[in-house]
Amino acid sequence: MNKKIAELKKLVGEIHDLQSVMAVLDWDQQTYMPPEGAEERAAQVETLSRLEHEKFTAPAMGELLDSLQGKLKELDPESDEYCLIKVVTREYRRKTRVPADLVAEFARVTTIAQHEWEKAYHAADFKIFKPHLEKIFDLRREYAECFAPYDHIYDPLLDEFEPGLKTADVMAIFDKIRPRQKALIHELGARPQIDRSFLQQTYDGQKQWDFGINVATRMGYDWNRGRQDKALHPFTTTFGLGDVRITTRILPESLTSGLFSTIHEAGHALYEQGIARNLSRTPLGTGASLAIHESQSRLWENMVGRSREFWSWAYPQLQKAYPEQLGAISMENFYRAINRVEPSCIRVEADEATYNMHIMLRLELEIAVLERRITVADLPQLWHDKMEEYLGVVPMNDREGVLQDVHWSCGIIGYFPTYALGNMIAAQIWEKAKAALPDLGSMIGKGDFQPLREWLRENLHCHGAKFEPQELVRRLTGSGIDPEPYLNYLYNKYREIYY
Amino acid sequence: MNKKIAELKKLVGEIHDLQSVMAVLDWDQQTYMPPEGAEERAAQVETLSRLEHEKFTAPAMGELLDSLQGKLKELDPESDEYCLIKVVTREYRRKTRVPADLVAEFARVTTIAQHEWEKAYHAADFKIFKPHLEKIFDLRREYAECFAPYDHIYDPLLDEFEPGLKTADVMAIFDKIRPRQKALIHELGARPQIDRSFLQQTYDGQKQWDFGINVATRMGYDWNRGRQDKALHPFTTTFGLGDVRITTRILPESLTSGLFSTIHEAGHALYEQGIARNLSRTPLGTGASLAIHESQSRLWENMVGRSREFWSWAYPQLQKAYPEQLGAISMENFYRAINRVEPSCIRVEADEATYNMHIMLRLELEIAVLERRITVADLPQLWHDKMEEYLGVVPMNDREGVLQDVHWSCGIIGYFPTYALGNMIAAQIWEKAKAALPDLGSMIGKGDFQPLREWLRENLHCHGAKFEPQELVRRLTGSGIDPEPYLNYLYNKYREIYY
Repeated sequence: MNKKIAELKKLVGEIHDLQSVMAVLDWDQQTYMPPEGAEERAAQVETLSRLEHEKFTAPAMGELLDSLQGKLKELDPESDEYCLIKVVTREYRRKTRVPADLVAEFARVTTIAQHEWEKAYHAADFKIFKPHLEKIFDLRREYAECFAPYDHIYDPLLDEFEPGLKTADVMAIFDKIRPRQKALIHELGARPQIDRSFLQQTYDGQKQWDFGINVATRMGYDWNRGRQDKALHPFTTTFGLGDVRITTRILPESLTSGLFSTIHEAGHALYEQGIARNLSRTPLGTGASLAIHESQSRLWENMVGRSREFWSWAYPQLQKAYPEQLGAISMENFYRAINRVEPSCIRVEADEATYNMHIMLRLELEIAVLERRITVADLPQLWHDKMEEYLGVVPMNDREGVLQDVHWSCGIIGYFPTYALGNMIAAQIWEKAKAALPDLGSMIGKGDFQPLREWLRENLHCHGAKFEPQELVRRLTGSGIDPEPYLNYLYNKYREIYY
Repeated sequence: MNKKIAELKKLVGEIHDLQSVMAVLDWDQQTYMPPEGAEERAAQVETLSRLEHEKFTAPAMGELLDSLQGKLKELDPESDEYCLIKVVTREYRRKTRVPADLVAEFARVTTIAQHEWEKAYHAADFKIFKPHLEKIFDLRREYAECFAPYDHIYDPLLDEFEPGLKTADVMAIFDKIRPRQKALIHELGARPQIDRSFLQQTYDGQKQWDFGINVATRMGYDWNRGRQDKALHPFTTTFGLGDVRITTRILPESLTSGLFSTIHEAGHALYEQGIARNLSRTPLGTGASLAIHESQSRLWENMVGRSREFWSWAYPQLQKAYPEQLGAISMENFYRAINRVEPSCIRVEADEATYNMHIMLRLELEIAVLERRITVADLPQLWHDKMEEYLGVVPMNDREGVLQDVHWSCGIIGYFPTYALGNMIAAQIWEKAKAALPDLGSMIGKGDFQPLREWLRENLHCHGAKFEPQELVRRLTGSGIDPEPYLNYLYNKYREIYY
């Protein structure tokens, strides 16, 4: 038994190495790779993807897993070994459905597509990206068909990011929140608007960078196990539990963009840095799912980073960095300004009240293309129309519309819903954290984030991917994914600000 | 035949991908990796090394190569196909001698050793590095034994970097140059010394960086296919013919260190960027050997970058960047200062007249440890003694002595001689270039490097690794590696400066 487990750990260790190396390649591509590096990089990613897939789906793995199934009942279901066998078996069953050639082609196509998306983004011209996106949707359909019969073509895609969750579940949750978020947006839209013109001055980039570094450090981000770089689209990536990197983007014309990116990504990174080190080089040594991950980034970004308590600590420092721009602005006015609700075109810049509407738009379009009810060519116009319908705003060009997010170019379809689910899970966890740490508000007000971070680490982070996301939510909050705490949080927060 | 060649290209393409990815990992480790990333990085490198080795030495590769040997006579020996079969066969024969476990262990040990070397370097304390270096020498001996019987234990190590060259050849060449370089150093030491105190002021780092970027650009380094970053020990690395990166180190207290590093590395990079693009993703798509590579970096660094003509173009710009430091210094005095001959402890800062002595010291120590005539523990003291004997200077501490170079920590033993050979080949090529481009001096004086770069590209760079290094030297210069042109170059240059 122990010998077999050791054998399994060796196998998954090598597979994990290949996955980590692909993360390095992706990080490099998004931060530093020169323009003409894309073609050979695509070949490298294709080769690694193929090798990773071959190793994971090799008969030796299947036989090993078979021989371990009977032993599961001898193990504690909460033990690392039990969870390892369970998770590797799940992944093995998933991966053996997909031909290696499809995996390799997908890797190659998306590596090139990212590059073409970047070009299209800068040119604000969807045409450049369109053939690549068509190919990506074709390959994702082909992937989904490997899992036929399915309840919904979106299910196999969603399952890759959110194991166990069904499209129908997501739609049911979204159906609950849609009318109430719309109503809130409508209600707040009728209130007198908050001034935030002072945010739209020029804010020196280096000072933004330094301020973000300081906040991430206070949050407990461990710089000996990470670093921050600049990327067009901020992200967090893990090369190992000793190397969890964040990225941000600094826009001198937008003070909040870089700051909240850094807090958001540091929230992701705290999760990964908080995973028990003995899960290193196994598939358990990562977040449980994308929604759980997003719950951590959004909790830090919004529940902490957009709270009055946070700014009662942070604002004097920000004022000191920007005396000209903020010297005459009170903390209360700053707090209200960064929480102003205003329908806008860019998801990552969206306020909390409108954010989920961006997600619903993407989900509907993704499903419609997959089901061939619309074509990729229709996307720019439909994006435009839906933005107008949901938020009453229209993108000026493709960069503000269909091209704004990197995800599709990476082949990530089925991922966006996890952002909205993350918001909801964040609120559920936030309620529990507040109950467990009665002084939480005043601690945040002193810039003391350690109790919150440690509570999250002990109750969530340390487990890595040992438990399925819905099981984890239940362990932590006593219920499944529930939109009520989030809706309560939103209504309470914004009514307090707006009335 | 064509089908078999295509099959070979596919196989070597995948192997090349793995090698390129290892280059990315190494670049990242030397530029940006956080301290605690080393352990998992070592596992990743180990896994990739093992896979690369397994793929290269797989029976399928052997059978394919066997089936292609008979076809060689049908091919033009200068064709890409002929050279590909020849080079892959050579590498296959070399690699199949070495067990995969040894390859993987070597990769893991050296990844960790690099990290420990860096610690030891900063602490100037050889003890930190000693156990790792002992392990590395053990593993290199074990590697050499795979090739027994050999003429010399150093032969298999040298062969990895300089295919076809023997230790006895190197020693014969070194025996020729040793007395004449010693005599030159002695002769110049008796002349009045050149003032270079003005070089030891503080030179703003950003301006140094910008100046280096400008020079590399004029040299023809293609930034769409590369970038420059900072590293403790400057190096050039190739992730593909579309992504050839350089690194430099900027020391505000030393104007020349960063500048000549940049020129040196850009010289390496021009070679890689000049390789015919159709050799991409094959073992031909790289330099022919380390000595040939070094001939290119040293040609640009010394024959061009330390020439009077170069500075007649570049010096006014440098003066403009540093008016306080250089405003009162004439071009002639600057030229003499950067060419001052002065025995010193650091190889990479050494002038042309003393440089090769540093190499001979390393070669002798490497061989003595391999032959167990001395131990790793003896190295610091012997380094000290030999420096005194060869150059009349002694290192202040281990950082200035045995720890100064990164190479051993990467497991690179058998490599240093290629630096000295590169100097000699550079002088041989320089003679040919001057004959082919009679206006070369005046073109350099105008900052026009295109003719030289194009001549090198057409006559050398484009071939990549198609021809063995000694064959390539013969094709280009009509003779084997010959120290005479280098010695003539040195004597002429320095007698002109010193008398």
